[in-house]
Amino acid sequence: MLLKNFVGGQWRSPQGEGQPLFDPVSGEPLVSVSAEGVDIGGALAYARETGGAGLAALNFAQRGELLGRIADVLTAHRADYFEISRRNAGATEGDASFDVDGAIFTIKTYARLARNLGDGRGFVEGGEIPLAKGGVFAARHFLLPVSGVAVFINAFNFPAWGLWEKAAPALLAGVPVFIKPATPTAWLAQRMVEDVVAAGVLPAGAISILCGSPRDLLDHVTENDVVSFTGSAHTAARLRTHPNVVARSVRFNVEADSVNSAILGPDAGPGSAEFDLMVKEVVREMTVKSGQKCTAIRRVFAPREVARQLAGAVASRLGRVVVGDPADPEVRMGPLVSKAQQQAASEGLALLREDAVVAHGGGQDFAPRAAAPAAGAFVQPTLLYCEQPLSARHVHDVEIFGPVATVLPYDDEAGLVALVRRGRGSLVASVYSGDAAFLQRLVPAIADLHGRVMVVDAAVGSQHTGHGNVMPTCLHGGPGRAGGGEELGGLRALGFYLRRVVVQGPPSHLAALAANKVDAALLGA
Amino acid sequence: MLLKNFVGGQWRSPQGEGQPLFDPVSGEPLVSVSAEGVDIGGALAYARETGGAGLAALNFAQRGELLGRIADVLTAHRADYFEISRRNAGATEGDASFDVDGAIFTIKTYARLARNLGDGRGFVEGGEIPLAKGGVFAARHFLLPVSGVAVFINAFNFPAWGLWEKAAPALLAGVPVFIKPATPTAWLAQRMVEDVVAAGVLPAGAISILCGSPRDLLDHVTENDVVSFTGSAHTAARLRTHPNVVARSVRFNVEADSVNSAILGPDAGPGSAEFDLMVKEVVREMTVKSGQKCTAIRRVFAPREVARQLAGAVASRLGRVVVGDPADPEVRMGPLVSKAQQQAASEGLALLREDAVVAHGGGQDFAPRAAAPAAGAFVQPTLLYCEQPLSARHVHDVEIFGPVATVLPYDDEAGLVALVRRGRGSLVASVYSGDAAFLQRLVPAIADLHGRVMVVDAAVGSQHTGHGNVMPTCLHGGPGRAGGGEELGGLRALGFYLRRVVVQGPPSHLAALAANKVDAALLGA
Repeated sequence: MLLKNFVGGQWRSPQGEGQPLFDPVSGEPLVSVSAEGVDIGGALAYARETGGAGLAALNFAQRGELLGRIADVLTAHRADYFEISRRNAGATEGDASFDVDGAIFTIKTYARLARNLGDGRGFVEGGEIPLAKGGVFAARHFLLPVSGVAVFINAFNFPAWGLWEKAAPALLAGVPVFIKPATPTAWLAQRMVEDVVAAGVLPAGAISILCGSPRDLLDHVTENDVVSFTGSAHTAARLRTHPNVVARSVRFNVEADSVNSAILGPDAGPGSAEFDLMVKEVVREMTVKSGQKCTAIRRVFAPREVARQLAGAVASRLGRVVVGDPADPEVRMGPLVSKAQQQAASEGLALLREDAVVAHGGGQDFAPRAAAPAAGAFVQPTLLYCEQPLSARHVHDVEIFGPVATVLPYDDEAGLVALVRRGRGSLVASVYSGDAAFLQRLVPAIADLHGRVMVVDAAVGSQHTGHGNVMPTCLHGGPGRAGGGEELGGLRALGFYLRRVVVQGPPSHLAALAANKVDAALLGA
Repeated sequence: MLLKNFVGGQWRSPQGEGQPLFDPVSGEPLVSVSAEGVDIGGALAYARETGGAGLAALNFAQRGELLGRIADVLTAHRADYFEISRRNAGATEGDASFDVDGAIFTIKTYARLARNLGDGRGFVEGGEIPLAKGGVFAARHFLLPVSGVAVFINAFNFPAWGLWEKAAPALLAGVPVFIKPATPTAWLAQRMVEDVVAAGVLPAGAISILCGSPRDLLDHVTENDVVSFTGSAHTAARLRTHPNVVARSVRFNVEADSVNSAILGPDAGPGSAEFDLMVKEVVREMTVKSGQKCTAIRRVFAPREVARQLAGAVASRLGRVVVGDPADPEVRMGPLVSKAQQQAASEGLALLREDAVVAHGGGQDFAPRAAAPAAGAFVQPTLLYCEQPLSARHVHDVEIFGPVATVLPYDDEAGLVALVRRGRGSLVASVYSGDAAFLQRLVPAIADLHGRVMVVDAAVGSQHTGHGNVMPTCLHGGPGRAGGGEELGGLRALGFYLRRVVVQGPPSHLAALAANKVDAALLGA
């Protein structure tokens, strides 16, 4: 079956045979996708004009209601999405829930946040700034939706959440969305859009989806558009230096994978609550979605004197994780999403083994349950141990996008900070410690190189939201290696879709412009 | 005289003979600059470490006091700066004031704004976000200064203001600055830094200046640094695609020149106050700093039925502007800053003449006062008239960085909007109209493609702050062609030097982190 694209307000069959999507357990082809024959420039123009006008006719509260209805539509088809997730991504029920329920939760959060914005259609930021004596001339800042389209070039690991965590704030801001899902898992994204379109929730042109190769997509974006990319740093570099993107200063958000850290405090020895909480979290991060989360823990820091014990505790739990076909009820972890990803993990592992030894796994004699090893894209959960992290060549740079992490002993606090910072910018670090003074030194020393820092102590216990879980009310993104982008964070996310302008003029004119605008302070509230 | 560079906390003489800077009136060489022999990587590292620590030791109020002292130092040496401006940039007294007094005013504004921030050292954004029942786990967003250096690659037209409008918010945010002034007018920037350093105002490493070729500067920036560029769109494209900048997602602000618009409303015929105000403003914009302002009016829109009269009125005033050596007391406009700029203006004029006819000037029989035409970089104020702006090939794209503007008649409001938008993103548009309904339609229709829109009516009269004047309390920057950057806007400008991070953890930890932080709502207040 060749999936249709929804562009220019219509479902259109692409030309050609398309590119097949596979079941990563059996290797069998499922559906095909293609962007051949699509007038991409025309599709973007339709989205901008028709979609933009349709959304502009609605106020924030009305757009929020649409988001609520989208969440209802997706909830109604949840079982289908779990099935597609299992077949096309090798997702366990937990993995599918992480993606699909995460998407629905995020949309509902934005639907709820929209209520704070009432019937406004843009934002006024700050008060009137007097610029002339006698009050005849003044200035005021506004945040208005960009007049173009929001182009999402998405990653394969979150076909559902990755789409809606971007679409929800964009639509709420009043900007139509144009989705280019990653090919290997495009099926779920395409089906979700199909269901939302069939339900007639959104104004014409407010949502489009183009599967397959993006072809000349970036040749057609303009200064009115924004582009949000999620994926590898390598592809990000290529896309954001696209000549048309650069020439038109197209606003470009990047969320790239990074070598995220989990850190055990010097106080948190074996037997402490923090030690156990960290062991549990490392195992969870390595195995949920088979480690295919851009937020997953890749580097596990522990005081040198307990690092081997920590590695042993993690390894012991990893040994109990049943890997195989997610259709089998005993299985807790499925394959990677494709043979290509399996191959990339294997290559990454070869590099990391130059720095580290295998503490668990590594693929020797590994047999997935209820699946043929050669046909599937399975990777055994693998824990590495790097004795000398200061002189390591790869462990701070190479991210294996799978169930692999490395334990790194540290000798003192300054050394720990230096090692963590060698990640050169990450999405998240989590710290497990009950030592308040240590935390008050460590967190500021690494915060500027992270989008998020999570602190867990015994009092928090298992009530934390997770190292790798992205809460819609909290910033998601990170500097440097992580791409430098910002997503989510509640209403903050709308900022990417808004343009700041200052209007200077007679106060009566400024007041008229501000009439249907909401206080921008709500964006960061 | 070969100017020294201030790097690594010392004044250092560069190697080699250097590159001469010229007097654009006489063509004689004045001083020379060079960056040869400078260890740029080491200089940046010193600024990051020593400068960063020195500024981090101060709170906002203390940094604001330093800004106040910088303003005092610069004020004390004002006469020297006017002299350098005249000799190295051909600046009239008004031009020099625009740059030098504009710089001092901007620094003083940030010194004043700093008082609102008290003894804080960072920002907390929004309240505590509960993430667990029972209140044991929550999140809070912070805005913290980047831990690197702010690199300024500046333009030749504002050696003073262009330096300090960036340095003031950076230093207030707590980020050391590293200035690479444009070579042709680097002298003034270098002298100002020399005076500030001699006065011992700033902590060691908080300010550095490197004159001459930037050489491998961008090879040494890291994910901890930010870069702010002002100059041509062409150079901006080259710099922001620098492999190291891209690989490390270095935050990069661009403010590029643009084809800014002045718009006469359909109501504002000859004899109206708005007509006269616009004529005066167009002439001012064309002649102040010889038209070498990135905000200057390049496109002059008027209803077709009055466009020729408008052109005539502008031409008539232009004819009275005395151009020549600014040392002559009769002279109101000096040369361009260099022969290269004169040549570029000449090439641009040849292109615009494919679209338009000369209404005034054009260089025939032009003789500057008290100066030899061949030696200097003079350009006659030139007004063009483009009969068919819809089919024009160059007038919406080619910016002549000199005293040149083009009158463009429009036929109706929709046509006007379409023409203005063909600038593809500008720093500023100004509208002269007393028709409130027209203004309420027009301003939103063009606002998203501008950083600033100024409205002038009869009640505002001559009390507006000027089309091309950048007020420190108002956003400066613009989308698309204008580079997509943001500068100034009061405390908003600090945002470029801050990194957002969300910290999740026990509320006690979040409260401790927030203890010395200021409410981020003040940034947009």
